Amino acid sequence: MIKTPYLLFLGDAPDQLAAKVAQGIKDWRPDNAVGQYRMPSCGADLKIADMTLAEAKEAGAKTLVIGVANRGGIISAAWKEVLIEAMRMGYDLASGLHNLLSEEADLVAVAAETGATLHDVRIASVDYPIANGIKRSGKRCLAVGTDCSVGKMYTALAMDKEMRERGLKSTFRATGQTGILITGDGVPLDAVVADFMAGAVEYLTPDNDADHWDMIEGQGSLFHVSYSGVTMALVHGGQPDALILSHEPTREHMRGLPTYQQPTLAELRDVALTLAKVGNPDCKVIGISVNTQHLNEEEAVAYMAKVEAEMGLPTVDPFRHGAGRLVDALEAV
Amino acid sequence: MIKTPYLLFLGDAPDQLAAKVAQGIKDWRPDNAVGQYRMPSCGADLKIADMTLAEAKEAGAKTLVIGVANRGGIISAAWKEVLIEAMRMGYDLASGLHNLLSEEADLVAVAAETGATLHDVRIASVDYPIANGIKRSGKRCLAVGTDCSVGKMYTALAMDKEMRERGLKSTFRATGQTGILITGDGVPLDAVVADFMAGAVEYLTPDNDADHWDMIEGQGSLFHVSYSGVTMALVHGGQPDALILSHEPTREHMRGLPTYQQPTLAELRDVALTLAKVGNPDCKVIGISVNTQHLNEEEAVAYMAKVEAEMGLPTVDPFRHGAGRLVDALEAV
Repeated sequence: MIKTPYLLFLGDAPDQLAAKVAQGIKDWRPDNAVGQYRMPSCGADLKIADMTLAEAKEAGAKTLVIGVANRGGIISAAWKEVLIEAMRMGYDLASGLHNLLSEEADLVAVAAETGATLHDVRIASVDYPIANGIKRSGKRCLAVGTDCSVGKMYTALAMDKEMRERGLKSTFRATGQTGILITGDGVPLDAVVADFMAGAVEYLTPDNDADHWDMIEGQGSLFHVSYSGVTMALVHGGQPDALILSHEPTREHMRGLPTYQQPTLAELRDVALTLAKVGNPDCKVIGISVNTQHLNEEEAVAYMAKVEAEMGLPTVDPFRHGAGRLVDALEAV
Repeated sequence: MIKTPYLLFLGDAPDQLAAKVAQGIKDWRPDNAVGQYRMPSCGADLKIADMTLAEAKEAGAKTLVIGVANRGGIISAAWKEVLIEAMRMGYDLASGLHNLLSEEADLVAVAAETGATLHDVRIASVDYPIANGIKRSGKRCLAVGTDCSVGKMYTALAMDKEMRERGLKSTFRATGQTGILITGDGVPLDAVVADFMAGAVEYLTPDNDADHWDMIEGQGSLFHVSYSGVTMALVHGGQPDALILSHEPTREHMRGLPTYQQPTLAELRDVALTLAKVGNPDCKVIGISVNTQHLNEEEAVAYMAKVEAEMGLPTVDPFRHGAGRLVDALEAV
């Protein structure tokens, strides 16, 4: 568990896209973001207060979060100056970079000296159990995709926000790097050893109030041959009561697999529901989220109307039109 | 890759069952087993030559394989005396124990001194790639089960043996500890990090002659919520051309999951084939293997005749009646 709130380190991000993780934190957990720390050449701006390490510390920040992709896969000397100074001032560090904080001898040495914790959210730091399949109390919702990167995390975050705005009990459960940094907690599922994947999902979504919903962040796709095992562990470990089907309609092929095509939404529904019912016989598919970023408004509305008619399920782009109708469907479960 | 042939270390195995791994090596790769090493209190016997370390060395043994489960989860002082002497004589060591050789400081020290290799087949020692899904040459067969431990490894080994006896090109591809020790090579799939599972299976079953079959060792079950992600990686990473359905008809519930029931063979067929066709649209279910160890001969024959009629697929217990009919079906693909 990463201590919040954060000072968001944007470093020398060349552009806004490079600061995607920091943007996600600011968008979804603005209370977690005390301010941003930018180096002189930074090309990104979250439109929150620029702060020095001292100012943010004064404002309550506990952890300096690296909210930016690094260039060339290395943690630069210029970054390290800031990271080391932060630790000396009492900050913990958190990062989702492939290049681990814990593999940098100088950072490790200062952490040992200052007592700072280095959070590398790409590696699993818990010994997860093997899944026991025992029915848990509370309810769970999982988005499953026709492909990777079709908006599953966004859908879960948007539904969680809508739920909480309605005064309903909801917790977003992060299963990937960005999600973990946004909330400060979660399971880096793609880094968990095979035998413990489903157990890690059970650990992440424990018994809860009967009217509480876990909004579980999806990963991969049952139809993506590189990552389908991870998705399967979510479907079985998560015991979802409700599934959302997620889709991006303009892909020419599966992400990273030029000779593979996305399944239809009907194919996804049938396979995902059959498998989910193994873990929870009462599971239902309750809605469809479409990532329409590559369609104009008219195309998007027409496409979703067509899907809704064909599938008989509320179909929305939560980014474009909000997650309200998906939450309506969840409330009806 | 573990150097063969082996001297099989049975140690102080209390009974035959405790020497299951050694028995598997002797049954399936007798050429890999130069002899057995038993301590005075050993209650197991593989009915092969008892040898001292020196005698087996003389006979060509390269690796001392721990073919026995250890008591209490520790590698005892009595075992270590033998293991250390073996390394001093030039042996490598191989083990599938949870208690790793590489975690025993005294063994590690002697290995460093003598140049011996310590093979812990429960841990992944290769950096496997992420699966790329590219179609590979050659053919592959995978057994998928209605549950864990229903005879998938046995089925693959028996089919591989029958194939080779017929002069056909076949390689058994091990994905678990016992299989790896039997053949000296393989991937410990349950120990691979989630993102790399399917890639590990691709690595294990590379391009091959057009008429060559990989007989891939199955793991878990698509319907077993604890391990289904591992099975999924085999179904997608393996790109099987042929699936065998494996079943044990007397189970009262899924292994280790008292409230879960096994699916029907028809349910398994439908889900497994749908998923396998994502990776290989030409995949076919070609036969059924039944583990009838808890049925008498008459019950077994009647049960299999009933399944064969219902499913329209050759149905055999390869242990009881050989794998010939499954290989016939494979040859017809």
